[in-house]
Amino acid sequence: MNIERRRNGVRAALEEARSGGRSIGFVPTMGALHDGHLSLIRAARAASDIVVVSVFVNPLQFGPDEDFQSYPRDETRDLALLEAEGVDVAFVPKVEEMYPRDASTTIRIARLSESFEGAHRPGHFDGVATVCAKLFNIVAPDRAYFGQKDAQQIAVLKRMVRDLDLPLEIIVCATVRAPDGLALSSRNAYLSTKDRRRATVLFRALQAGAAAAAAADFAGAEQTMRAVLEGIEVDYAACVDPQTFGAPRAGAPVLLVVAAYIGATRLIDNLEVEPAGESAPSTSGLRPR
Amino acid sequence: MNIERRRNGVRAALEEARSGGRSIGFVPTMGALHDGHLSLIRAARAASDIVVVSVFVNPLQFGPDEDFQSYPRDETRDLALLEAEGVDVAFVPKVEEMYPRDASTTIRIARLSESFEGAHRPGHFDGVATVCAKLFNIVAPDRAYFGQKDAQQIAVLKRMVRDLDLPLEIIVCATVRAPDGLALSSRNAYLSTKDRRRATVLFRALQAGAAAAAAADFAGAEQTMRAVLEGIEVDYAACVDPQTFGAPRAGAPVLLVVAAYIGATRLIDNLEVEPAGESAPSTSGLRPR
Repeated sequence: MNIERRRNGVRAALEEARSGGRSIGFVPTMGALHDGHLSLIRAARAASDIVVVSVFVNPLQFGPDEDFQSYPRDETRDLALLEAEGVDVAFVPKVEEMYPRDASTTIRIARLSESFEGAHRPGHFDGVATVCAKLFNIVAPDRAYFGQKDAQQIAVLKRMVRDLDLPLEIIVCATVRAPDGLALSSRNAYLSTKDRRRATVLFRALQAGAAAAAAADFAGAEQTMRAVLEGIEVDYAACVDPQTFGAPRAGAPVLLVVAAYIGATRLIDNLEVEPAGESAPSTSGLRPR
Repeated sequence: MNIERRRNGVRAALEEARSGGRSIGFVPTMGALHDGHLSLIRAARAASDIVVVSVFVNPLQFGPDEDFQSYPRDETRDLALLEAEGVDVAFVPKVEEMYPRDASTTIRIARLSESFEGAHRPGHFDGVATVCAKLFNIVAPDRAYFGQKDAQQIAVLKRMVRDLDLPLEIIVCATVRAPDGLALSSRNAYLSTKDRRRATVLFRALQAGAAAAAAADFAGAEQTMRAVLEGIEVDYAACVDPQTFGAPRAGAPVLLVVAAYIGATRLIDNLEVEPAGESAPSTSGLRPR
């Protein structure tokens, strides 16, 4: 595995592959890799000639009171995992390599970046969009892989790719969950043993709200989620349109989203549900012939 | 010449060139082409295998009270000029092709975009940066060509290219001037015969301030410029650092910039001067041996 710490190193390492017409799959990560990341890497591996993974804890997407300093870092373990997955190039830049002292360019996606995670973490999605645009420009992949767990991040990045005509495709992979349903996250490492058990409440809330959401009873779905989450500090528990994070539309897929504190640890999760009846074959005779 | 109106058309037209390793030079324009544009196209032609020119009046870089509607447009004439210059691909998109109804992504360069032109035209450079990022992503040129007349635009775009790791080089070509010194601009078409004669005052002001600026007497240079511009509505007449548009530094190149109204027409111009004595060979003996 080629380990590159400089942008020019990555470009040079990929130049031959690119000019030879080989496809590049890219998985941007902040390290502290878990099975969710590995599922993205395997999807990239299956579909691409060359797999590139970046490991970079991006300061731009952390608020001043957030956990940039304490975010889990274990480069040795991460690189061993990437090597074992057959990754071709690991890009592991330092902050100074990515952001010169006078860097001043920001990408903002209006509205979509301002609600839910964006409302609770001002500037977060500007930081995500900006670093991903940089990484996409450095690696120039055909496809970049992200986990469904960060659903609003996916909506933001898909919108950015469309709006800026970035020449790549965003591929979304299913959330990987522990056997008890907790969505894998590097931040789960912050949980005490007791809090780890309690943390399943997020997924239980989403599951409890799914039936009402599928029936387009969005207020009912939210009430049900909040009932399951009672006694827990909730940032939001809502039904949204998966693309816009605005109001969900009856008859279209709806996304249940939740953010809540388990002890001092803020966790997020989501669940997409199809409108009721859509999965069964239509027998209504209303289809145009 | 290949005339393309769709983004996918441009990509398809350039795919063979790109995979064959041929270099692409790109000149983004808003049409109403004059000899300044043609000098950019000739520079691109001399250095590139393939030359692409876009003609797109970008609504995003016009303020609500500005001249988007009345901006001069003459596609037939522009295309004939491009053909005569041996341009390979003309990209002439409609607004709907570039901006879907719900487009919401903006690129902002902090500070640099907020002073001088940015202060007088809020949002202007966000619009310039965003459309150029889109065009760069669609065309994927090796080099993009801009005229020195729009000096702050150049500083903004160079900063964006560096900060977002865009894989291209910004090439700056000298301002093309009429014999009487007026910098060529599509907006010169707005000037009455009388105003056209008066418009030379911008370049005369810059020339008058050059000596003081070269001697690092920036206050003196500004006074001299304002004296020449007396009786004219001036937005700014100042000495700046050419990269940051912040305060100029003694001993470094300094840019004199001016924006003023000739009748109802707002014009800009600039002149870069080297610090005095720098062009003469050093005889001071202070060089490290």
